[in-house]
Amino acid sequence: MKSEHAWLRALAPSLGASCPSLLVGIGDDAAALVPPTDPIVLTVDAAVEGVHFTRQIASLEDIGYRSFMAAASDLAAMAARPVAALSSLTLPPRFTEQELEQLVAGQRLAAALIGLPIVGGNLSRGGLLSVSTTALGACPSPRLRSSARPGDRLWLAGPVGLAAAGLRALLRGLPTHAPALRACVEAWRRPLARVEIGLRLSSLPCALIDVSDGLAQDAGHIALASGVRLILDADQVLKESGSSLQEASALLGEDPGALALAGGEDYALLAASSAELAPLGFVPIGQVEAGEPGVVVLRGGAPWEPPAGFDHGEGSEP
Amino acid sequence: MKSEHAWLRALAPSLGASCPSLLVGIGDDAAALVPPTDPIVLTVDAAVEGVHFTRQIASLEDIGYRSFMAAASDLAAMAARPVAALSSLTLPPRFTEQELEQLVAGQRLAAALIGLPIVGGNLSRGGLLSVSTTALGACPSPRLRSSARPGDRLWLAGPVGLAAAGLRALLRGLPTHAPALRACVEAWRRPLARVEIGLRLSSLPCALIDVSDGLAQDAGHIALASGVRLILDADQVLKESGSSLQEASALLGEDPGALALAGGEDYALLAASSAELAPLGFVPIGQVEAGEPGVVVLRGGAPWEPPAGFDHGEGSEP
Repeated sequence: MKSEHAWLRALAPSLGASCPSLLVGIGDDAAALVPPTDPIVLTVDAAVEGVHFTRQIASLEDIGYRSFMAAASDLAAMAARPVAALSSLTLPPRFTEQELEQLVAGQRLAAALIGLPIVGGNLSRGGLLSVSTTALGACPSPRLRSSARPGDRLWLAGPVGLAAAGLRALLRGLPTHAPALRACVEAWRRPLARVEIGLRLSSLPCALIDVSDGLAQDAGHIALASGVRLILDADQVLKESGSSLQEASALLGEDPGALALAGGEDYALLAASSAELAPLGFVPIGQVEAGEPGVVVLRGGAPWEPPAGFDHGEGSEP
Repeated sequence: MKSEHAWLRALAPSLGASCPSLLVGIGDDAAALVPPTDPIVLTVDAAVEGVHFTRQIASLEDIGYRSFMAAASDLAAMAARPVAALSSLTLPPRFTEQELEQLVAGQRLAAALIGLPIVGGNLSRGGLLSVSTTALGACPSPRLRSSARPGDRLWLAGPVGLAAAGLRALLRGLPTHAPALRACVEAWRRPLARVEIGLRLSSLPCALIDVSDGLAQDAGHIALASGVRLILDADQVLKESGSSLQEASALLGEDPGALALAGGEDYALLAASSAELAPLGFVPIGQVEAGEPGVVVLRGGAPWEPPAGFDHGEGSEP
């Protein structure tokens, strides 16, 4: 097996070109970077075999790609620009060089798409495949969950529910000839952290979160952190998620509303800001009210209870 | 089970007081920090059950403590001052709240000793216990492995071999009444990343590395990165490691030279710098020469081949 550093270097084929902040790259005890003038944003996210993914439905490239995007999405959720990432991999026994190459190819693809270069990491042996990604960003004024105010409008950037529909199609082994199902599977396999859209909010006062666990649940985080009541209009959410979700839901025999409100891993962005100014790339899906912190979902104008939140489809987190 | 955020908060009981750089702490999508004016140093290290530790010989508090120190030591090895850390935990099934509390207590203790506050993290379920620690530091001029020059002297800060001796005592289930063995077990259970000593080198031109895998092996990293030949004097190294290592080696029936040169996880610091100026806290243990990159160990004045490097005692890394 190649050395740890050889593998880490494979993560970063053209490091100098892709990370203008880099002072010291892979090969020393740590990476070193030019300090940003703006506040630093720092996050870590882990994807563990059997909990966040199974190799039955995801290729190793998918696993590398998706785990990286999940971490990058936390930068988007703070309205931060990407600076650099670290990758900590735990590889099961008998994991081959070729398999590692596939995993790394997925990470590299995601890193290139987001502009978040991998500048270091760690490689260990262990029982289950696990990918832990540290993402470092910078932002003049990080956007928080706690900034929603009564009177604000709720804004959504990106469709929701597609990734959950795609995951269900994969778990059931459904053929994905139908374009709608194929689009949903693609949404699950190749989500895009909405870093560019998040950056547009860095100068707009707002509350911001990424939709990783499900829209209703993530809206609940804003409600709780801000001490407000969020009214979500499921019909407007469904309109934003388009015809693919409608068609895929029909093929799956699932309620599109449940998929859109409780399905995670689309990495849409949910913002709460002034009702007067629509942030570019966002559509209105509800409003913020004073009251007992929580989320009310309206469907056809009447309160509606979405499912408690799908899990990741392969296990559960604490 | 408590929520992820409740647990992460338990990692950081008095966050505001302990992290002067903190702008946004646990509870949002990411942590936010005042940017340092000096270059950023960033590293990640993972400790995985069955590879880096077993619960037969280490308490959960030990595991939390040691994994954190291993990451912090990479900051010391760059001569960086600690800024903030993230902790990504994967917990096996049936891992209890009480067990998590013990693990977290060890992390918290290490974080307090080093002054490296935990400002965020991630909690997942998974097959094996695993602790991945991201450490962020800052340094006006990060010290590299590649800066050793022919004519430099080699300097060591801290004893080596004690942790390896302690690990062997634990693995063999030896009683640790003897003060020397007890000191070695303590060196393994409660190593201290030499951050303060590393900081003294931030204004001294030098090559620097921490001794995590074994002195001869880590010296090899400097030799290779700098393109130089390192001459290590095992007798001087043994003098620095003191009588505890001699006595413990006798009780273990091991060669103290082998433990000192090939035993890891003491987190001593190895520097190469001008022969004229002894850096504070370091003792001379050899010199740097031009020639084929590599390490020559002298013992009793003659070349001596230390063992290829002990593994961690519980498995192997790739």
